[in-house]
Amino acid sequence: MSRFISQKHAALTPYVPGEQPRARQYIKLNTNESPFPPPRRVADYVTAEAGQLNLYSDPESAALTRTVADFYGLRPSQILMTNGSDEILNFAFMAFGDASHPFVFPDVTYSFYEVFCTLNQVPYETIPLREDFTIDPADFCGVRKHIVIANPNAPTGLVLNLADLETIVRTNPDNIVIIDEAYIDFGGESALTLLPKYENLLVTRTFSKSRSLAGARLGFGMGSEALIGDLKTMKDSTNPYNVNRMTAAAGVAAMEENDYYMDKVRTIRAIRDDTAAKLRDMGCLVTDSHTNFLFVEVPGLPGAKLYELLREQGILVRQWNRPRIENRCRVTVGTQEEMDAFVKALEEIK
Amino acid sequence: MSRFISQKHAALTPYVPGEQPRARQYIKLNTNESPFPPPRRVADYVTAEAGQLNLYSDPESAALTRTVADFYGLRPSQILMTNGSDEILNFAFMAFGDASHPFVFPDVTYSFYEVFCTLNQVPYETIPLREDFTIDPADFCGVRKHIVIANPNAPTGLVLNLADLETIVRTNPDNIVIIDEAYIDFGGESALTLLPKYENLLVTRTFSKSRSLAGARLGFGMGSEALIGDLKTMKDSTNPYNVNRMTAAAGVAAMEENDYYMDKVRTIRAIRDDTAAKLRDMGCLVTDSHTNFLFVEVPGLPGAKLYELLREQGILVRQWNRPRIENRCRVTVGTQEEMDAFVKALEEIK
Repeated sequence: MSRFISQKHAALTPYVPGEQPRARQYIKLNTNESPFPPPRRVADYVTAEAGQLNLYSDPESAALTRTVADFYGLRPSQILMTNGSDEILNFAFMAFGDASHPFVFPDVTYSFYEVFCTLNQVPYETIPLREDFTIDPADFCGVRKHIVIANPNAPTGLVLNLADLETIVRTNPDNIVIIDEAYIDFGGESALTLLPKYENLLVTRTFSKSRSLAGARLGFGMGSEALIGDLKTMKDSTNPYNVNRMTAAAGVAAMEENDYYMDKVRTIRAIRDDTAAKLRDMGCLVTDSHTNFLFVEVPGLPGAKLYELLREQGILVRQWNRPRIENRCRVTVGTQEEMDAFVKALEEIK
Repeated sequence: MSRFISQKHAALTPYVPGEQPRARQYIKLNTNESPFPPPRRVADYVTAEAGQLNLYSDPESAALTRTVADFYGLRPSQILMTNGSDEILNFAFMAFGDASHPFVFPDVTYSFYEVFCTLNQVPYETIPLREDFTIDPADFCGVRKHIVIANPNAPTGLVLNLADLETIVRTNPDNIVIIDEAYIDFGGESALTLLPKYENLLVTRTFSKSRSLAGARLGFGMGSEALIGDLKTMKDSTNPYNVNRMTAAAGVAAMEENDYYMDKVRTIRAIRDDTAAKLRDMGCLVTDSHTNFLFVEVPGLPGAKLYELLREQGILVRQWNRPRIENRCRVTVGTQEEMDAFVKALEEIK
């Protein structure tokens, strides 16, 4: 840190993304990317934009917003497109949190939530998951604090059902409830159907996982017109042209190619369930994943050791030295060949 | 605003970007875009990325950062690439400003600075330009506050010389001095040469103007390793993968095609000076632009009226109803044909 940085950031520890190796070729199962490239139409739309990059992108991302709104049966004013879903999440913490409006979220979840709180000087509390990594919905009912829940949750892969989600949203009418649905296309029930009833609900999504656009950076939030208006204010006060022309075009193509993606989602789910079954047969502990990753423990082997041994075999996974999950690794579901290699590596390790 | 928004944002009025018309075809001279598309290599590099968008971009933007560092003779650790230069500017206000570390900047300048301050709850003062719209450097010497100066300044188009800039940086050793060089390729002396001597200097740049990439969203900051480290902390605490794959590739191509761009810059300067001369012959007031725009007053005609009359003739320019500049319009330098049409329209208006 320089001597100029504001004291308000003294406690700030940035988020650490999964490593992006540039040298050795790894089987990369550490950042929950899709193993499948986007369909041809994405490249076609992107290339069509490349010749007019001298012109600013549309600050409203109107064409893309309309496409997404039509797909989900919402009005465009209920949607805000962002530079990845990290941006819409940060806007929400920035807009709604402050010293007297803290956030709560599970103790084991997307570790960026605590960074967003610290950055924005928003106090937060974490609520422990049950021993089996499930969320007890009663813990979040009537807490009178802003709430963020990833559903399915990461890195556990587990889901809350829609009735429980609705109870949480309904019993916190004076607070925002953010449901982060980064992985919803892989399993679980979306909270989108609750939007017409609850003005305090914000649902966030990303194109990074099921739509194979991690490298394009595209996410969005859906909520009441008033909530989305506040988030637009954050966008227009930080970076009005937040989504570039190429990414906006890629997003339109990705929505138009929905069948391609849903086919890939089915493939990933099948590979996931097949791999999970093999791991359980080998005596591994694996949660009931509703996502594109597996949360794996090899009994008797610390997570950091498992990570290291897999890395030596050329396989990158994600591991955190945090309480309760230090014996687990998060393993992205890759292609069948990649998962066969992973299972084989694990057999040699055990 | 929703009833959930934090009270800290009560005074926030977002930045309003220039309009991006979708219907009628205008001669668009309102957002300082380059009239020239990027060279072919940009499209080639972008297209090459489109097939691997399923993989995250490099959070360090290492290849692009190295290319830019080599070009300017800096170390990569002295550079941070961002989603447009608005993002690096916001990071700077976020990192260095707080209730006891206010900012100062000229009263007539890029209107986003006051938005960044308000958003980040950073107090600010504005220092009036002289009557002729020039900055009096003495006003910024030893002010003991963080400083941001656009050089060349917008919308005035005027510059400070390097000696004056150095005096400002040198006499404020315990504060950050940001020199926003969005337009520097069109005129003026860069503060880059001061970087080895001053750890409190941050120079920001954009690919949106001279490098024809407004629609790709790419900017960057250059400074001491410690300053850039703080700004990276902001990046990694908001959006670690802030620059997408396509934009990073376009940026590399744009640096490799430097000759193409410098040729276009010469063309734009020639068209600018030719247009300014014609306007002065017509009796208009035009500042001595060192940018890709002209700051124009038609004596006796309010700026809002000039804006309206030009718009009726199919020409979009930018105008602000703000003290001291309400009689001016900012007119982007387009192609020779576009500027001929602008001059012709002005002849009819007068």
